[in-house]
Amino acid sequence: MSKYWSELTASLVPYVPGEQPKDKRYIKLNTNESPYPPSPAVIAAIKSAANEDLRLYPDPTCEKLRQALAKYYGLTSDHIFVGNGSDEILAFAFPAFFSPEKPILFPDVTYTFYPVYTKLYGLTYETIPVDEQFNIEAEQYRRPNGGIVIPNPNAPTTRYLPVDDLRVILEANPDHVVIVDEAYVDFGGESAVSCIPEFPNILVVQTLSKSRSLAGLRVGMAMGHPDLIEGLNRIKNSFNSYTLDRLAIAGAVAAIEDQDYFMETTRKIMATRDRTIEILQPLGFQIVPSKANFIFISHPRQSAQSLFSELKVRGILVRYFNQPRIDQYLRVSIGTDEEMDYFVSVLREILG
Amino acid sequence: MSKYWSELTASLVPYVPGEQPKDKRYIKLNTNESPYPPSPAVIAAIKSAANEDLRLYPDPTCEKLRQALAKYYGLTSDHIFVGNGSDEILAFAFPAFFSPEKPILFPDVTYTFYPVYTKLYGLTYETIPVDEQFNIEAEQYRRPNGGIVIPNPNAPTTRYLPVDDLRVILEANPDHVVIVDEAYVDFGGESAVSCIPEFPNILVVQTLSKSRSLAGLRVGMAMGHPDLIEGLNRIKNSFNSYTLDRLAIAGAVAAIEDQDYFMETTRKIMATRDRTIEILQPLGFQIVPSKANFIFISHPRQSAQSLFSELKVRGILVRYFNQPRIDQYLRVSIGTDEEMDYFVSVLREILG
Repeated sequence: MSKYWSELTASLVPYVPGEQPKDKRYIKLNTNESPYPPSPAVIAAIKSAANEDLRLYPDPTCEKLRQALAKYYGLTSDHIFVGNGSDEILAFAFPAFFSPEKPILFPDVTYTFYPVYTKLYGLTYETIPVDEQFNIEAEQYRRPNGGIVIPNPNAPTTRYLPVDDLRVILEANPDHVVIVDEAYVDFGGESAVSCIPEFPNILVVQTLSKSRSLAGLRVGMAMGHPDLIEGLNRIKNSFNSYTLDRLAIAGAVAAIEDQDYFMETTRKIMATRDRTIEILQPLGFQIVPSKANFIFISHPRQSAQSLFSELKVRGILVRYFNQPRIDQYLRVSIGTDEEMDYFVSVLREILG
Repeated sequence: MSKYWSELTASLVPYVPGEQPKDKRYIKLNTNESPYPPSPAVIAAIKSAANEDLRLYPDPTCEKLRQALAKYYGLTSDHIFVGNGSDEILAFAFPAFFSPEKPILFPDVTYTFYPVYTKLYGLTYETIPVDEQFNIEAEQYRRPNGGIVIPNPNAPTTRYLPVDDLRVILEANPDHVVIVDEAYVDFGGESAVSCIPEFPNILVVQTLSKSRSLAGLRVGMAMGHPDLIEGLNRIKNSFNSYTLDRLAIAGAVAAIEDQDYFMETTRKIMATRDRTIEILQPLGFQIVPSKANFIFISHPRQSAQSLFSELKVRGILVRYFNQPRIDQYLRVSIGTDEEMDYFVSVLREILG
């Protein structure tokens, strides 16, 4: 606390990212990174962009990247916004579309950054309970609101809501923006980008951090009606004109264009996920059906917190959330087959 | 305008960066970029960081970069904050330290992003007129306020305020944060970083965009009392945990460590600036004494707006501000000696 802080600063409860301990080398299954490196085309594009042009500002509109994304999604570039990770895009979208008067709705079990944004911008929110199996129930999103955020698949639960159910929410809320946070959609889900021509109130947010193996490059994208994209640009251009550097733009374009590599690595991760689930079930684990690059697991005989600690001692990091409804669960990112085999063998050892 | 925009979004008047036309190749003297490439060590560091680790999140605390900066400034790393350009740091600092109740003070002629930030965060401001020669008068900053922003040297005027005058402002405002925006301080000014041990209320903001030839990499830094740094971190961690990507961190560390290259390029730019001023004076130009990598010039016989247009037609971009007090001036970035010679020859042609 400092007398120089604004009231806002003093009131904030900032987000805490997954730990990155440096005391020893861990198998990192705790921050949903890809176990596979980015496409070789991405590395080549970045090396090629590491040249004397770095003395010049990047294109503030990131037109080349937006064109590549437009082609990929079958949209025009005025439907596309890009930012410094999907977190930054969400941080722009909350003030762009939400107002303090009415609560924003999102699930009670979800990405813990959402309430942090509301606090930053003086907004209010109401959480809608997911059901006992962690399903998001579309019918619950018919109550008065000032906007909605639906993570799909949801984190940390891995639960996926079919696009038809999303349509129910979109139709019930024609006067408010519905943000669909699709950070994990490329691991078996179907994107709601297909709803954009029909619904001027949907904003789909995605990221290169997970399915394109580029958590270290900080690039996210949002797709929606050009009016929504203009709203995001108004906030962004009142904050920082150049949020993507030249290297990030070059790498991101290459990532989007290398569809073969993307298909291959996401397919491998899904196969490893499904294989891991098959091995864990006989050990007594309850596993939520996953459409993400992580799984959400619980064991009836062992507390999640102690499992978390036992794994950490043995060099494996997973994520444990000490919060209501999910404190018996662990979120485990999908690594390589070898990493998951080791993870399972350590679990066997712990369970005895 | 869209019914989906928040009231805030509708009310904003976003910042407009200098134009980046693509219709033909220009001599770009309009966005204060360095005419020299970044240090070869920066390029090498980026290429080396373009590896498979890009799949992993960057260090959210940017400890390695903060250590390099701490060493450079003779501070400890808890006095250092880094961000996606100094614009992002200012965008965090305004809500971190300023509140709506009392006006923020800054000069009437200055960086046009300051009022944009106030609007974004619902803050109020009062502009303090610079004198007829565009000097910032320290004594004017004794009136009631909720915080102060002093650009030093000021943009676009190039005027520099000696650190002793800054101390007058700091001493007169012990209860409020004084942000000193030193984007251009490396071209002949003295940094107010020396005031940090004495004043817990000073935040010094700098950038790698100008003096380190890295406008395309998006890295800025802020130095101040650890309490102020913590305030910035509270806002940042409520917005986006990872604002600097792995490549930007690697390049920035190399830039800070290559002091020889930095000294050489800034010295060359200052020499070209002083030489350009000597050539322009006999042509009748009035030139504000500059401690920046640009000059602010006016001609008694020719309107600045028409000069701007005539230069553009001839392939030279400079910056013209159609606003009170400075609409007879042009802001001209310092290029290479060859670029400035060509600029002068074209001016001679226009003046006839």
